[in-house]
Amino acid sequence: MGEEVKVFGAWASPFSRKVELALRLKGVPYDYIEEDLNNKSSLLLQYNSVHKKVPVLLHNGKSIAESIVILEYIEETWKTYPILPQDPNDKAMARFWINFIDGKCSSAIRKVAFSPEEEREKAVEEACECLKTLESALNGKKFFGGDTIGMVDIVALFIAFWLRPFQEIMGLELLSSEKFPNLFKWTDDFVSCSIVKELLPPRDKLVAHIKAHLSK
Amino acid sequence: MGEEVKVFGAWASPFSRKVELALRLKGVPYDYIEEDLNNKSSLLLQYNSVHKKVPVLLHNGKSIAESIVILEYIEETWKTYPILPQDPNDKAMARFWINFIDGKCSSAIRKVAFSPEEEREKAVEEACECLKTLESALNGKKFFGGDTIGMVDIVALFIAFWLRPFQEIMGLELLSSEKFPNLFKWTDDFVSCSIVKELLPPRDKLVAHIKAHLSK
Repeated sequence: MGEEVKVFGAWASPFSRKVELALRLKGVPYDYIEEDLNNKSSLLLQYNSVHKKVPVLLHNGKSIAESIVILEYIEETWKTYPILPQDPNDKAMARFWINFIDGKCSSAIRKVAFSPEEEREKAVEEACECLKTLESALNGKKFFGGDTIGMVDIVALFIAFWLRPFQEIMGLELLSSEKFPNLFKWTDDFVSCSIVKELLPPRDKLVAHIKAHLSK
Repeated sequence: MGEEVKVFGAWASPFSRKVELALRLKGVPYDYIEEDLNNKSSLLLQYNSVHKKVPVLLHNGKSIAESIVILEYIEETWKTYPILPQDPNDKAMARFWINFIDGKCSSAIRKVAFSPEEEREKAVEEACECLKTLESALNGKKFFGGDTIGMVDIVALFIAFWLRPFQEIMGLELLSSEKFPNLFKWTDDFVSCSIVKELLPPRDKLVAHIKAHLSK
């Protein structure tokens, strides 16, 4: 009997793409269910009654919510193509960066979008400080995972693809090849991988979506 | 040759206590190094150069920062007394609650402390909403971990001990036996365990510390 693997996501959300990317890297077939975030399905609300958000992973009738929690579950359930290092110290270091990207770095970038005009400069400074830390974390590696894509790269997907249209729309420069050459090269290398490229939304459609979102 | 296990912490910080509690539950001997947060040691700044915060775990010369990352490392390194469930679904559920407590719930409570007067009522409402969610997550169990203390309980240590003096000082009622009887009972059961009790700072000293912190 085949496994039931379903992802409830939204096309413009980097969070659901992260879950899909992990499944694809591991070669796990899944069904994708697109949610209308303005009119969420009763299934989504049932499966993630606490946060009421995408993504949700449904595996053989059991639901898991929150992208990082889902990624850890995927890593433990399907052993093909490990996305976390095996060595406990390296694994802790990967989780440290996941925590940094998903927490401090992601909040700092969100703050740039939603802080009032007079606080924007400080917000940009803080976001750049986070990117600078990531630049040094790459430390000459092609990916955060080393030679191949790992969970840190997956979690940083929004920096690799969402950040550039976002900063263009905002008329700001957070990430550039001059400021953070390693991180900039990483974004190019990462989104050029065919497995990643196939998953990304069309740029024009995303730009229109972000513009609409920011003007709300 | 014995293992080197050191915890860099601060007496009033629930975060360093979480790490110590996990080590004690597993029976791992460790040295504790008290940090002066107003004058952090060069070792702390070296071991956690990104966040410059306690706790840091030093294990055989390698450092790990961020309390949740440390707890995961402890769980993987010392197999005595598991603090996460073995079943992948139950483990994902535990990580979901850890994420909720350490993220949304903890932010909501911090917001109560630091939001301006006119936004306090809304902040209190949001914090109570989080506690209500936790009340239902307990679902008749003695601990979030079931019959014994698990990682979810450990992460929620600040709710078990820090929250009551905090709300008294603020003159607010977030958690009470009337509002959330299960969660209130859990705080009593949890802090009465001798292994927890021994770790907690003296209440009077903590009250003075929180007062000084809030008036800054």
